[in-house]
Amino acid sequence: MTTELAWTLVCTALVLFMTPGLAFFYGGLVKAKSVVSMMMLSFGAMGIVWILWVLIGAGGIGAISDGGITKFFGNPFQDIGLLDATKATDGTLASAAFGGTFAVITVALISGAIADRARFWPWMIFSGVFAALVYFPVQAWVFNPDNGWIYNFGSTGTLDWAGGTAVHQNAGAAALALALVLGRRKAGFTKEEAVPHNVPLVLIGAAILWFGWFGFNAGVFGADEGQTSLIILNTIVAPAAAMIGFIIIEQVRDGKSTAVGAASGIVAGLVAITPACAHITPVWAMVLGLVAGVVCAFAIDLKYKLGFDDSLDVVGLHLVAGFIGCIWLGFFAFDPDTGLFYGGNADQLIAQVVSSVAVLAYSFVMAYVIGMVIEKTVGFRVKEEDEVAGVDLQHGEAYAFD
Amino acid sequence: MTTELAWTLVCTALVLFMTPGLAFFYGGLVKAKSVVSMMMLSFGAMGIVWILWVLIGAGGIGAISDGGITKFFGNPFQDIGLLDATKATDGTLASAAFGGTFAVITVALISGAIADRARFWPWMIFSGVFAALVYFPVQAWVFNPDNGWIYNFGSTGTLDWAGGTAVHQNAGAAALALALVLGRRKAGFTKEEAVPHNVPLVLIGAAILWFGWFGFNAGVFGADEGQTSLIILNTIVAPAAAMIGFIIIEQVRDGKSTAVGAASGIVAGLVAITPACAHITPVWAMVLGLVAGVVCAFAIDLKYKLGFDDSLDVVGLHLVAGFIGCIWLGFFAFDPDTGLFYGGNADQLIAQVVSSVAVLAYSFVMAYVIGMVIEKTVGFRVKEEDEVAGVDLQHGEAYAFD
Amino acid sequence: MTTELAWTLVCTALVLFMTPGLAFFYGGLVKAKSVVSMMMLSFGAMGIVWILWVLIGAGGIGAISDGGITKFFGNPFQDIGLLDATKATDGTLASAAFGGTFAVITVALISGAIADRARFWPWMIFSGVFAALVYFPVQAWVFNPDNGWIYNFGSTGTLDWAGGTAVHQNAGAAALALALVLGRRKAGFTKEEAVPHNVPLVLIGAAILWFGWFGFNAGVFGADEGQTSLIILNTIVAPAAAMIGFIIIEQVRDGKSTAVGAASGIVAGLVAITPACAHITPVWAMVLGLVAGVVCAFAIDLKYKLGFDDSLDVVGLHLVAGFIGCIWLGFFAFDPDTGLFYGGNADQLIAQVVSSVAVLAYSFVMAYVIGMVIEKTVGFRVKEEDEVAGVDLQHGEAYAFD
Repeated sequence: MTTELAWTLVCTALVLFMTPGLAFFYGGLVKAKSVVSMMMLSFGAMGIVWILWVLIGAGGIGAISDGGITKFFGNPFQDIGLLDATKATDGTLASAAFGGTFAVITVALISGAIADRARFWPWMIFSGVFAALVYFPVQAWVFNPDNGWIYNFGSTGTLDWAGGTAVHQNAGAAALALALVLGRRKAGFTKEEAVPHNVPLVLIGAAILWFGWFGFNAGVFGADEGQTSLIILNTIVAPAAAMIGFIIIEQVRDGKSTAVGAASGIVAGLVAITPACAHITPVWAMVLGLVAGVVCAFAIDLKYKLGFDDSLDVVGLHLVAGFIGCIWLGFFAFDPDTGLFYGGNADQLIAQVVSSVAVLAYSFVMAYVIGMVIEKTVGFRVKEEDEVAGVDLQHGEAYAFD
Repeated sequence: MTTELAWTLVCTALVLFMTPGLAFFYGGLVKAKSVVSMMMLSFGAMGIVWILWVLIGAGGIGAISDGGITKFFGNPFQDIGLLDATKATDGTLASAAFGGTFAVITVALISGAIADRARFWPWMIFSGVFAALVYFPVQAWVFNPDNGWIYNFGSTGTLDWAGGTAVHQNAGAAALALALVLGRRKAGFTKEEAVPHNVPLVLIGAAILWFGWFGFNAGVFGADEGQTSLIILNTIVAPAAAMIGFIIIEQVRDGKSTAVGAASGIVAGLVAITPACAHITPVWAMVLGLVAGVVCAFAIDLKYKLGFDDSLDVVGLHLVAGFIGCIWLGFFAFDPDTGLFYGGNADQLIAQVVSSVAVLAYSFVMAYVIGMVIEKTVGFRVKEEDEVAGVDLQHGEAYAFD
Repeated sequence: MTTELAWTLVCTALVLFMTPGLAFFYGGLVKAKSVVSMMMLSFGAMGIVWILWVLIGAGGIGAISDGGITKFFGNPFQDIGLLDATKATDGTLASAAFGGTFAVITVALISGAIADRARFWPWMIFSGVFAALVYFPVQAWVFNPDNGWIYNFGSTGTLDWAGGTAVHQNAGAAALALALVLGRRKAGFTKEEAVPHNVPLVLIGAAILWFGWFGFNAGVFGADEGQTSLIILNTIVAPAAAMIGFIIIEQVRDGKSTAVGAASGIVAGLVAITPACAHITPVWAMVLGLVAGVVCAFAIDLKYKLGFDDSLDVVGLHLVAGFIGCIWLGFFAFDPDTGLFYGGNADQLIAQVVSSVAVLAYSFVMAYVIGMVIEKTVGFRVKEEDEVAGVDLQHGEAYAFD
């Protein structure tokens, strides 16, 4: 076995572990009467997206071509069920497995926007359709070195190491769309009501996310020894600094720093460093983390002003920090020295902006359309009386400590 | 350090993590007044089985011979305390560590059958005796390529990559035996009463099990690059499909899909793919997972009809799915193409059936005898008043949220 | 990528995961009204110590010299922000990342002594100052093979594979100092009141600690195949035996064995094997674990007799078991055969005692001074009314199950 294969497999296991971690992070943040529903949105996505990934997703990536419709959507029928790849005696299937973990968590992330009011099976439909029509092609645009239009944009190409666009801005834009499709909760959409029912569960989730994120950022192929080491260190120090930044803002603004704030800061830092982890030094990673933590500490309150019920702050954390991390490279990218302050021209910055905006727009529109079709046909949001009683009723489960 | 050694050590850590994961899965499923007892059955098994494994288990494996009593029981006195192995400068001790993790979880799995009514120290006695007399020899039958009679059965040998017989059917049969030895609970043995006290804890356990299962299935020696990649992907998609299968049955039958059902489906899929992970394609792994999920969704209700109190469904999940996975290979094994539908004869199928039945019978009889001796001497089941009051009283611990 | 690099990175991820694990272990042990505060002490330390480690810690290690002030304190200004190391194309940054995980958990461990009564931001100050003035230099004394005075003490050098002195006795001595600085709790400091609010959370923490400890003990550079395998097996069997030892004492003394006892025994065994994991056989590792478990089962009650409120037994577990593990090598070290019973002279024993005492004394004095300065200036302990109401009020978070 080669070290590269073993490493990819370890990273695959780590990233697979992230989606349950997200389920716990989200599950702890909601009320006790919504926790089962909240976790099931993530676990359900694991089921449906994995199946689709093997059937049409993984095989379709390599099939993205340099022209025609398949330039944008690949060819899902290229290797249905990975039948060809199964015959490979190298790590082809391992790469497919690693890639699938990204698809799953991207979809699961979106569910944070629709807490306390989503029906389970319509969410499963959304998960499958969104994965097939949005995540699968977008990830090919971003990660395919041969024909991915984002990967190859302009004179510099876009820098996005592990998914600041394809994963985080993508999930964030879709989350915004679904928050609009489903509308505000009957109760719970005020800062005062946003009380997590189980803080330890939130931190268990955040810890698993951080742990798994090493695989997320460092499992991407092609990094050399020094670069991989840099990625790991940056994946530690950016969230560490972001956590500090986030809770300092809380302390100064609110007179208290919270564990949920610490966890949110960690996530903000992890998201921001995701596109940038291979292209900035540890000190700049800390600065980026600090900036992301501070900005997100304010950004998560925007929903109250603008009135969209992004319940668990997918927009305020993933969209915002993902955008910050991508744009950051436009200014500060070194190795390659194409950032504005290193390379002296704005080509990289333009690539970062264009690719971010393109993914945001495509994801938002598609998620809105898919979500609205589901809402208008089978119905996405639970009935009012069920929402008041608690969405967990659809699963028939609850805590029973006594 | 070779990649093989590093991989084995990573897999060892992953599988070690599974037994606490099982403790959380089981602990969340029981009532709040039994959770400490339930978790201690797993943690206690970790203690006693590890000690015995180092003293007589690991050294005895290699000592299984081609004739005489040691053909069936190995020679526990071959390398007591691994004194010889300690001198090795290669990965011999790492293999011993990896193997020990299987012994521990097999024993811990059994404890699901005796929830709410088992005494701790008698369980510890059972754990040690069962490990020594059942798991240690059975794993040698199944995994020892030189003299394991199951490994070498018939013209094809038995296919069981990571323990569909030695671990899962073994644990399932012993669980059935102990359920009979200890008898039904005074209260709690109806489908209506089987309410988990802490669903997030169940999912935390299931997530750790899935995460650790990568090590379980892929840590076995001797796979090449392509095969190891296949194993990892199959260990993802089989449980994903099984989860979907399980909750669809729930939805159709009961009008609701549950988180416990999702977790149970994941476990069913992981168990079913365990023997088969290296020998079927990802698409067939999904089909196998789907079948296992659907069958287990029905199988876990058999105990109500047949009247044995296998409290947490060790039989319905591990015995049934382990059997399905093993028999599946008799029909569909490719690479080697010995399944009935590939090779054209029934040799593989016969080997799969015979080895499954042999392990089931040996494990059931031995567990029944060991358990009954313990029950009739020191007493295995708690006193009636203690059972009503809650088995956690023997540990003197409980939740104290207020 | 070399196997050594991949292994170091995996171990880094594992050890990073330990500090959240510690947060859950500690968080479960306290009352429900202190759990957020307790976890935040660990998470907060992750933030501040990581930042300092990159800024001045990691670069300063290599700068420890063979004379002058830098022989004891290194040179924190040697490579500020790891700017030089970032240019390396090998695993230099990976080593820095791995080393940082040790700094973080050492500081976090201390927080167990000040449960229920510490203010968050003063703790953050303590964390940073203690890391810079105590952990950073001490770890260089212990781990730097060129100029570390403890590493090179006497004719044998000190044997301390992964931090029996630098991490565990260090944390234990500092914990004792802070317990004295902050004084006893108004309520809660009796054995009867030491009731954990959430046993599953304690075990989740213990499980993550054990899982991560593989990285802790086995990630250190320079071990060959056989030695690394030995380390892994010892890191399993010592805590397994210690758990059994601890709960047997409980059973005999108290008439019941507890899950917290099992978890404490696991930690005691892990601590004791930390310095010794590469230098004793598995059988002796079990004996060491058993001794550590038994001794710690008694040692954790000393605080009640001596009157210091080391709330979660950092002294009784980490100081005591760390000391046992270090001294053990003075008697039983083989490979090198320098233990009293192998080498026939006391040189190794003297080195073990001197280095332990030196670290204990330095850490205690420094922690006491730093803690007292904080207490007398900004105030370390919460106000009496806040302590009665619960320290979590400073974070404004609590469980909200209903």
